[in-house]
Amino acid sequence: MKTPATFYHAGCPVCVEAERQIADALDPTRYDVELVHLGEHGDRIAAAEAAGVKSVPAIVINGAPFHINFGAPISALKS
Amino acid sequence: MKTPATFYHAGCPVCVEAERQIADALDPTRYDVELVHLGEHGDRIAAAEAAGVKSVPAIVINGAPFHINFGAPISALKS
Repeated sequence: MKTPATFYHAGCPVCVEAERQIADALDPTRYDVELVHLGEHGDRIAAAEAAGVKSVPAIVINGAPFHINFGAPISALKS
Repeated sequence: MKTPATFYHAGCPVCVEAERQIADALDPTRYDVELVHLGEHGDRIAAAEAAGVKSVPAIVINGAPFHINFGAPISALKS
């Protein structure tokens, strides 16, 4: 069974670069990568925060949050 | 030809976790991942800084630096 990995972003330039270079680089035979745009899917913010995500871009693997550089704080994505 | 990816760390807990979950997760058919312990190989610090690395753990892919969470600033690794 593949390991789920959730990449949270907000379409920002830093996010796009991290998606292209990190999220897309994961081994597809071992990881199931889901891309979630928190600006468009505000209903996913609570789950991201529960996993420890403080800013985007970030990727949650095996329940652990990894913030990749810094694009925007989660708080800026709440309307 | 594989894309070179250099993972810089200092053996810190945050570094170890990032290595296990991110560096080891890259697709081995597309990436050649080198692990560099900057605490043990101080001669590699200049190249890391030149690539834009400000803290560890970080991974440089295609020349672009991606800081993953925060373990220690590069300055703390200089003796």
